Amino acid sequence: MRGVVLHAPGDVRVEDRPDPRIEKPTDAIIRLAATCVCGSDLWPYRGIEAVDGASPMGHEYVGVVEEVGSQVRDILPGQFVVGSFFASDNSCEICRAGYQSRCVHAELMGAIGTQAQYARVPLADGTLVATSDVPTPDLVPSLLAASDVLGTGWFAAVAAEAGPGKTVAVVGDGAVGLLGVLAAHELGAERIIIFSRHGDRQQLAKEFGASDVIVERGDEGVARLKELTNGLGAHSTIEAVGTQESMMQAIRATRPGGHIGYVGVSHNVQLPGDEVFFSAVHLHGGPAPVRRFLPDLIARITSGAINPGKVFDLTLPLEQAADGYRAMDERRAIKTLLRP
Amino acid sequence: MRGVVLHAPGDVRVEDRPDPRIEKPTDAIIRLAATCVCGSDLWPYRGIEAVDGASPMGHEYVGVVEEVGSQVRDILPGQFVVGSFFASDNSCEICRAGYQSRCVHAELMGAIGTQAQYARVPLADGTLVATSDVPTPDLVPSLLAASDVLGTGWFAAVAAEAGPGKTVAVVGDGAVGLLGVLAAHELGAERIIIFSRHGDRQQLAKEFGASDVIVERGDEGVARLKELTNGLGAHSTIEAVGTQESMMQAIRATRPGGHIGYVGVSHNVQLPGDEVFFSAVHLHGGPAPVRRFLPDLIARITSGAINPGKVFDLTLPLEQAADGYRAMDERRAIKTLLRP
Repeated sequence: MRGVVLHAPGDVRVEDRPDPRIEKPTDAIIRLAATCVCGSDLWPYRGIEAVDGASPMGHEYVGVVEEVGSQVRDILPGQFVVGSFFASDNSCEICRAGYQSRCVHAELMGAIGTQAQYARVPLADGTLVATSDVPTPDLVPSLLAASDVLGTGWFAAVAAEAGPGKTVAVVGDGAVGLLGVLAAHELGAERIIIFSRHGDRQQLAKEFGASDVIVERGDEGVARLKELTNGLGAHSTIEAVGTQESMMQAIRATRPGGHIGYVGVSHNVQLPGDEVFFSAVHLHGGPAPVRRFLPDLIARITSGAINPGKVFDLTLPLEQAADGYRAMDERRAIKTLLRP
Repeated sequence: MRGVVLHAPGDVRVEDRPDPRIEKPTDAIIRLAATCVCGSDLWPYRGIEAVDGASPMGHEYVGVVEEVGSQVRDILPGQFVVGSFFASDNSCEICRAGYQSRCVHAELMGAIGTQAQYARVPLADGTLVATSDVPTPDLVPSLLAASDVLGTGWFAAVAAEAGPGKTVAVVGDGAVGLLGVLAAHELGAERIIIFSRHGDRQQLAKEFGASDVIVERGDEGVARLKELTNGLGAHSTIEAVGTQESMMQAIRATRPGGHIGYVGVSHNVQLPGDEVFFSAVHLHGGPAPVRRFLPDLIARITSGAINPGKVFDLTLPLEQAADGYRAMDERRAIKTLLRP
């Protein structure tokens, strides 16, 4: 099959890779209907994260089940399925508490690489959620978004306790931040303020429910936010970047007793204990347990209530993956969908 | 009046200080019935926190109201009152959300110094809670504990979401950690595991409701805790120390999706972003909003349901404050009560 491989920073190639096969009786093989490039794929692409030899890429996926292992009970060949970036058994104590991304048997889909024609999905019954029918093509981008960026933005909004009566701040205007706006809006937030200096992203944020945009960053951005919130700060802050600056901006933007949901994969961050202590905020986040939210998100998408697929502003054939990475790296695209 | 003044690390003196007087119409003057030495007083005593000239000491207090300012409505002379280490208006938006320690008009009682015969209490109506009757002398130590260490331990247990079905770990066996055990027990926790290597403290922890004691610290302590929790870690962890080691022990002792309530005043702590991110825990803490809990705690104490005053294992006249500090510094006492 054909699949995307990163050889070195900036060096993305589409190559022949071995066809996946059932390795364990709990595996399924899916044929990808769509896959995409994640903001987190840009960390190794930019050389900020080490690239340890040729690495298959991708961890977002929707597709049709081709084959299942002998112990797979609930997932059937022919079903259209959505999964997330961690395979999980969905039955251990940690999964049952809603933290499937830290399942005691978790496996990272990124190591398998879903920017490809086919993929092996471990723990298929726990990992995959089937749609009731094969979806119409217009729904595929949104279902693909549920696989990571929507699920992650949703988790951030839930972790930040966005809801009725709440003023929500959003740090980060990439796909996850934008879908954090959508999630906060769906959860009933009263006011949603996004930090963004890119016109196209501001526009999409407003479509998704943002009420205000702040173009300033860092402490200037925080000062502007305080002006909009009686000097107190947001009740709920979504952090969707993962840098020292973005984490401190999120902490400083949040009022005492407020909640921060942080989902930007942390890179070289050190949180100063004294400032965190006296901020009196709640901090929760990490790799989103997307599986927890998938049934609800799929229902909202198939009913037409939400259209998160709008974050894909570039669609390319899989063979042009390198162009898709480049467009995101240069911020010409918010998110690239790849058609295998 | 007589009051405690710290002149330099290790140099505690009881001196004549000016009698406090009403400075603002919202002030009250109280005559202290009892006061005490806090674990946090040991930071400057030990020279770990800078001592900036002669500093009045103390922020825990119960006493009888002597005089009130012209705008004080609810607090009356003659009442027996309990306050906490932050004066607060108890009416601003932050107070109403339960974060009185971050009241927009908060004032630090430590700067006033309650290890003394009298003290001025700002924002008396918001800060002080009166008991229904003047309490019998045996209740005074417990009411004094409510002023800080019980209120702080209680907040930690609430922040850690201790409750029915939960396994709670407690890092720190000082008065706050011990009263965190009591709080977790009162809140209905199923199992309470304290890290402690001091026999007297282990004993008191058991009296307060601890089910298990772990004598190992750091990663060894975490490994022992994991053995006791099916390899998963605690649901809820109370952190009551404030060092790098104790915070990391708390984070590592907590299962994914679990909650950490941290109340040890943070000293030279840097939380590594990547480890915090992948831990997937909830972090909440800071200076405890003791005022939120005072009415409930006073009711539990006066009804005899709890006896947090047991943490005072040394009682001295105010004049012997220096001995009280020394005993705590040398770990000969858990907590020293001073009688003015």
